[in-house]
Amino acid sequence: MPDIAAVKAALAAQRIETPSWGYGNSGTRFKVFAQPGVPRDPYEKLDDAAEVHARTGVAPKVSLHIPWDRVDDYAALAAHAKERGLELGAINSNTFQDDDYRLGSVCHPDPKVRRKAVDHLLECVDIMDATGSTDLKLWFADGTNYPGQDDIAGRQERLAESLAEVYARLGDDQRILLEYKLFEPAFYTTDVPDWGTAYAHCLKLGPKAQVVVDTGHHAPGTNIEFIVALLLREGRLGGFDFNSRFYADDDLMAGAADPFQLFRIMHEVIAGGGLDAAAGISFMLDQCHNVEAKVPAVIRSVMNVQEATAKALLVDADALAAARRSGDVLAANAVLMDAYATDVRPLLRELREEQGLDPDPVAATLRSGRLERVAAERVGGAQAGWGA
Amino acid sequence: MPDIAAVKAALAAQRIETPSWGYGNSGTRFKVFAQPGVPRDPYEKLDDAAEVHARTGVAPKVSLHIPWDRVDDYAALAAHAKERGLELGAINSNTFQDDDYRLGSVCHPDPKVRRKAVDHLLECVDIMDATGSTDLKLWFADGTNYPGQDDIAGRQERLAESLAEVYARLGDDQRILLEYKLFEPAFYTTDVPDWGTAYAHCLKLGPKAQVVVDTGHHAPGTNIEFIVALLLREGRLGGFDFNSRFYADDDLMAGAADPFQLFRIMHEVIAGGGLDAAAGISFMLDQCHNVEAKVPAVIRSVMNVQEATAKALLVDADALAAARRSGDVLAANAVLMDAYATDVRPLLRELREEQGLDPDPVAATLRSGRLERVAAERVGGAQAGWGA
Amino acid sequence: MPDIAAVKAALAAQRIETPSWGYGNSGTRFKVFAQPGVPRDPYEKLDDAAEVHARTGVAPKVSLHIPWDRVDDYAALAAHAKERGLELGAINSNTFQDDDYRLGSVCHPDPKVRRKAVDHLLECVDIMDATGSTDLKLWFADGTNYPGQDDIAGRQERLAESLAEVYARLGDDQRILLEYKLFEPAFYTTDVPDWGTAYAHCLKLGPKAQVVVDTGHHAPGTNIEFIVALLLREGRLGGFDFNSRFYADDDLMAGAADPFQLFRIMHEVIAGGGLDAAAGISFMLDQCHNVEAKVPAVIRSVMNVQEATAKALLVDADALAAARRSGDVLAANAVLMDAYATDVRPLLRELREEQGLDPDPVAATLRSGRLERVAAERVGGAQAGWGA
Amino acid sequence: MPDIAAVKAALAAQRIETPSWGYGNSGTRFKVFAQPGVPRDPYEKLDDAAEVHARTGVAPKVSLHIPWDRVDDYAALAAHAKERGLELGAINSNTFQDDDYRLGSVCHPDPKVRRKAVDHLLECVDIMDATGSTDLKLWFADGTNYPGQDDIAGRQERLAESLAEVYARLGDDQRILLEYKLFEPAFYTTDVPDWGTAYAHCLKLGPKAQVVVDTGHHAPGTNIEFIVALLLREGRLGGFDFNSRFYADDDLMAGAADPFQLFRIMHEVIAGGGLDAAAGISFMLDQCHNVEAKVPAVIRSVMNVQEATAKALLVDADALAAARRSGDVLAANAVLMDAYATDVRPLLRELREEQGLDPDPVAATLRSGRLERVAAERVGGAQAGWGA
Repeated sequence: MPDIAAVKAALAAQRIETPSWGYGNSGTRFKVFAQPGVPRDPYEKLDDAAEVHARTGVAPKVSLHIPWDRVDDYAALAAHAKERGLELGAINSNTFQDDDYRLGSVCHPDPKVRRKAVDHLLECVDIMDATGSTDLKLWFADGTNYPGQDDIAGRQERLAESLAEVYARLGDDQRILLEYKLFEPAFYTTDVPDWGTAYAHCLKLGPKAQVVVDTGHHAPGTNIEFIVALLLREGRLGGFDFNSRFYADDDLMAGAADPFQLFRIMHEVIAGGGLDAAAGISFMLDQCHNVEAKVPAVIRSVMNVQEATAKALLVDADALAAARRSGDVLAANAVLMDAYATDVRPLLRELREEQGLDPDPVAATLRSGRLERVAAERVGGAQAGWGA
Repeated sequence: MPDIAAVKAALAAQRIETPSWGYGNSGTRFKVFAQPGVPRDPYEKLDDAAEVHARTGVAPKVSLHIPWDRVDDYAALAAHAKERGLELGAINSNTFQDDDYRLGSVCHPDPKVRRKAVDHLLECVDIMDATGSTDLKLWFADGTNYPGQDDIAGRQERLAESLAEVYARLGDDQRILLEYKLFEPAFYTTDVPDWGTAYAHCLKLGPKAQVVVDTGHHAPGTNIEFIVALLLREGRLGGFDFNSRFYADDDLMAGAADPFQLFRIMHEVIAGGGLDAAAGISFMLDQCHNVEAKVPAVIRSVMNVQEATAKALLVDADALAAARRSGDVLAANAVLMDAYATDVRPLLRELREEQGLDPDPVAATLRSGRLERVAAERVGGAQAGWGA
Repeated sequence: MPDIAAVKAALAAQRIETPSWGYGNSGTRFKVFAQPGVPRDPYEKLDDAAEVHARTGVAPKVSLHIPWDRVDDYAALAAHAKERGLELGAINSNTFQDDDYRLGSVCHPDPKVRRKAVDHLLECVDIMDATGSTDLKLWFADGTNYPGQDDIAGRQERLAESLAEVYARLGDDQRILLEYKLFEPAFYTTDVPDWGTAYAHCLKLGPKAQVVVDTGHHAPGTNIEFIVALLLREGRLGGFDFNSRFYADDDLMAGAADPFQLFRIMHEVIAGGGLDAAAGISFMLDQCHNVEAKVPAVIRSVMNVQEATAKALLVDADALAAARRSGDVLAANAVLMDAYATDVRPLLRELREEQGLDPDPVAATLRSGRLERVAAERVGGAQAGWGA
Repeated sequence: MPDIAAVKAALAAQRIETPSWGYGNSGTRFKVFAQPGVPRDPYEKLDDAAEVHARTGVAPKVSLHIPWDRVDDYAALAAHAKERGLELGAINSNTFQDDDYRLGSVCHPDPKVRRKAVDHLLECVDIMDATGSTDLKLWFADGTNYPGQDDIAGRQERLAESLAEVYARLGDDQRILLEYKLFEPAFYTTDVPDWGTAYAHCLKLGPKAQVVVDTGHHAPGTNIEFIVALLLREGRLGGFDFNSRFYADDDLMAGAADPFQLFRIMHEVIAGGGLDAAAGISFMLDQCHNVEAKVPAVIRSVMNVQEATAKALLVDADALAAARRSGDVLAANAVLMDAYATDVRPLLRELREEQGLDPDPVAATLRSGRLERVAAERVGGAQAGWGA
């Protein structure tokens, strides 16, 4: 049986990175519902992230998105973060919101557009140098909407060339985290639609290129934990963009739509050694809080990841191995399900109290009046959203 | 074998309604790419629709969307349409873009919000009275994002009450066309997610309520033509929102993603008598032209519907019936596929020439220089889009 | 907060019906793996069902499948059941395994085949009269494999006629439970593919026709609990065929693939009053145990349904209603998730002990040596399977 | 514009391999409907394949399945083929129908079962030596049904080891064609579920390992032609298992469910040079004819592949490249759609007549009376099916 002290130590050591854009407004193509108190600049986003970390104790890193989080002085931004117990995390590029990118960015048929896109990616590495970030997270919206629109294989060539130039620019401690996504915003082909495509490009780039698994970016029925196990085995799992979905890339709170899936994923992470800091797996959130309050929703998401991790840590590995060896399907399944059925909230409340935190992070932030306070303070100016 | 003159007559009599918003800018949550020459008001949208009708001869009706097409004087708008050989079609309501609708409209837990939404629907019927439109097309974005968020059955009650009030307001020649959609923008439940729900509500409302089939609004694997055949048999098929999709509600040009599906749908329409004007089936487009030129894309979509219809009209119904009676699976399939394999473009070109139209509508509009002209003329002001 | 005594009472009163065929061999088109000790006739199937009931205390009813469970003397079979504390449950018809049914049964183009199929259904009602069963469960494999193969609307006519004849034969206390299924074994159209189709037929038949929801019979992404809530509201939910799936109709143990979904379903059942015996909802299992031991797998499935029910009973309905009224998305979701996160196994163990049962039904049956005993006893003869 | 003579030459040179098991009985887990005249041994299967080739002129190769096509004397079987203008094609292994394979074959936890499975694969290479076949087609049913059942990464290790041993046994002109499949018969994990997994294993094995794309083995929404383009670009596309599907692995006739998809696939094949014989792409059928007559269904499938190929050959590559270069989405799409809209049946009829064949292969075989003749001759004995 797992040792509870070891479980707690692993949970205390876990790091969950939150995305700056998760604190801004977001929505669907139909409507973005603005919320009171939403940050107006990257500094205020960090303030919100600091609240999440202060309540949970496991969220000290914040992913930035360029240009949404572009500032004049990244050292000042990093200092702002440090003062709040935070550090700046992955730099996320944006090659989808400029008018030039209508038909793609790094895969665009026009070399001038590709140049512009690659230059943006190189700028992101410059920013990493300034912020000390080690991860360049690349998601490409590139693709086509209609059969025939462009040359599928040709676009792969352009993608490979663009990536190679960026890879060459990486410092020794920097890496590319290459994301894949089945569809949206492209509706016929997407240039990096699945883990296989991302993996093939990473293989060619070299050891500093790894795959990011966004849990909302798969075809219906895809077994995500299988992909996780495979990439871990190949040493090519760079990290996660956690969120959840019922249909497509719904970007709901992690663990909200299918908590059992999140548990199964964490089980494979642990089985493959991915929870050790040395494995370098980045556990990031990437979500939209369209209708719910944002800071509490991020806190809740962090807690959901913690609970899934705690349950996965409780799996009795010896009993599981024994059941598998004997070919006892029901017994092996039961070992896993026993861990999943366990209520780990008491354990996590205990851990938080030991760390001097409120055992109930959501209640604590609500009780603190912080939401009302920032809503009163953050008046005027333009709220941050996907466009800024 | 089908009589070619009869096929041509049916094709000449077909009416395909185009959506005013198809001429405006549209996009995804990631980006709306503006295009030169996009209309700035409902009058200019009608001008674009007039070009589509002038080139194809089968698109004299234009659906309006309120409030995007709200004007002070609907009689003037109708006159503008009439001068261009057009008439105003279905009125589409919008209960999803006001801040009050964050948690729903006609299904919202707060009766004040429901009142506001129903008032908007009643206003739409007022506009129908002013424009002479007979169809009130209702699509509700209502739903929830998270399990537990609201009471599924309670929302059905509210929906039923709201619909009943609107139904009571309909004139003798007016009807409700109730649309369903699996998901988006809601990501856990949608209050009218499938044809069964729409059908159940229509049954209770009465004979002036019918179901609209949007070809992009189904779960993967759904057999749409089956639904069409069923609704036709029940007398509850009100019309179509044609578009096409590879993944979710991609809103690509009708017939672009799966032309065989569009043919199968039209085959069921014809088999069920739905092509007769007396059946009252409304053949509408509802699409987004995110990356392609809009007027030519609408023309192409109209042509795609025409081609699917032409092929379906060419099905040898007697041979099909005989093969079915004898249980000859391959022969029955072959009868259908023979019609589908037929190149109907020559027939349609011939028909256009007989009608005094250019046989190649897309080439004709491109050659005319109209796109360049309106791009030069429509400078300044705000381009129309989903928000206006 | 829910009253624990009331929760226990509800759990003690719950009845979960197990399928006779779940005790026999089953598999895929690729292979049926036979297992030692599988019953050879309906009597031995009842013996296995008795073990499930003896261990769980909530599974006293057994669904039969005709002709797989055809016997000469149904009174003797019922007596055999009664001696073991069981009663005979729903009668399941089979109109898919005779060579005549290659192109369908009640929808077949040939009236002679339809006659044969309807006669079988009438025979099933005769058997219900003999066994005292109240439920005729109808699942039709009818459909087509190729576009054009048969007339979709015509098949609906034949279906309606066939059903009407069977409905007319029902006794006062008998009902039709009409099942729907997206696909398999038909691969283009299925004649009752979705709840809407089943519902429409039930409406026309009358009050003694209700819909059965098999949890594995939907398109990817379908929200099953929504359908449950709707059918309950309409008074047309007759029952469930519980099982679980990752892909298609995988027929895994209930609650194994998505325990959160099963919980959400039970939450809607309870919210709609469906757990009261008076509601007449039949909670049946319909699964295949292809690679796992069958009796323990059925026990496990029953327990999974119990656990989902227990969690759903623990939902704090008042807190939920308050959060919904105030439009607090996160709070409402949290109320539901708190119930789901609760470990209900101690509660169920306690309940079993109060009922004089072993708290761990799976361990108890394994420990008892019964599996080994029946494997030793049931030697020779033909094991039961889908074909017998 | 494409040169018609060149198009015809390419069509005349195309080779479509038919599967021996396509001539036998097949079905679903619910029922296998036997058909009159079905072959009773591999020799009679070859006789049926010979009829397909005689009628179409492009189907001289026949895939065998071991053990279903196991014979004492493979030289005699090859001679039987040669006499009929045929040659023996890919050898398909079977590691799913033995009782030992309940929990897997080459991935089984028990090394004895893995040994047995690998020995079978080595036997298949022996048979290739005897028949002169160059392709060992490997499809593994291996996987698990329940979370926790076995070790995902451990199974990959076992798979890699097993494959390596078989790879080492290959002759200079022999290769492994590794197939992937999303699910069925395994319902939780499949050990080779997607192209990425197959590709990763092939990379490690070496140049004589390539991926086979079965068009029915993907998650809903997967863009198959994208995978084809990628694998071609990587030099790892070994061939196709053509069939079609609406839902899962329906195994319908190629081109029957989505003829536009088959055209898009062939377009990518041609764009990537895959139609040249030197590319070594194997165009195989792998289908089940459950309800339709088998020999005519195979002929129809071959014709469907031919028609898709003909249309793809008619794509105006220069016009397409120009439209793509100019970023004209509609023009590029139109070039592709123009080819697809073309009725290529006249071209193919002409080609057949030039080759001395009947222009209508299905009509020719039906008219010949062969079906009735073999039905009369093949009486007694056991019809071939998936089990034999």
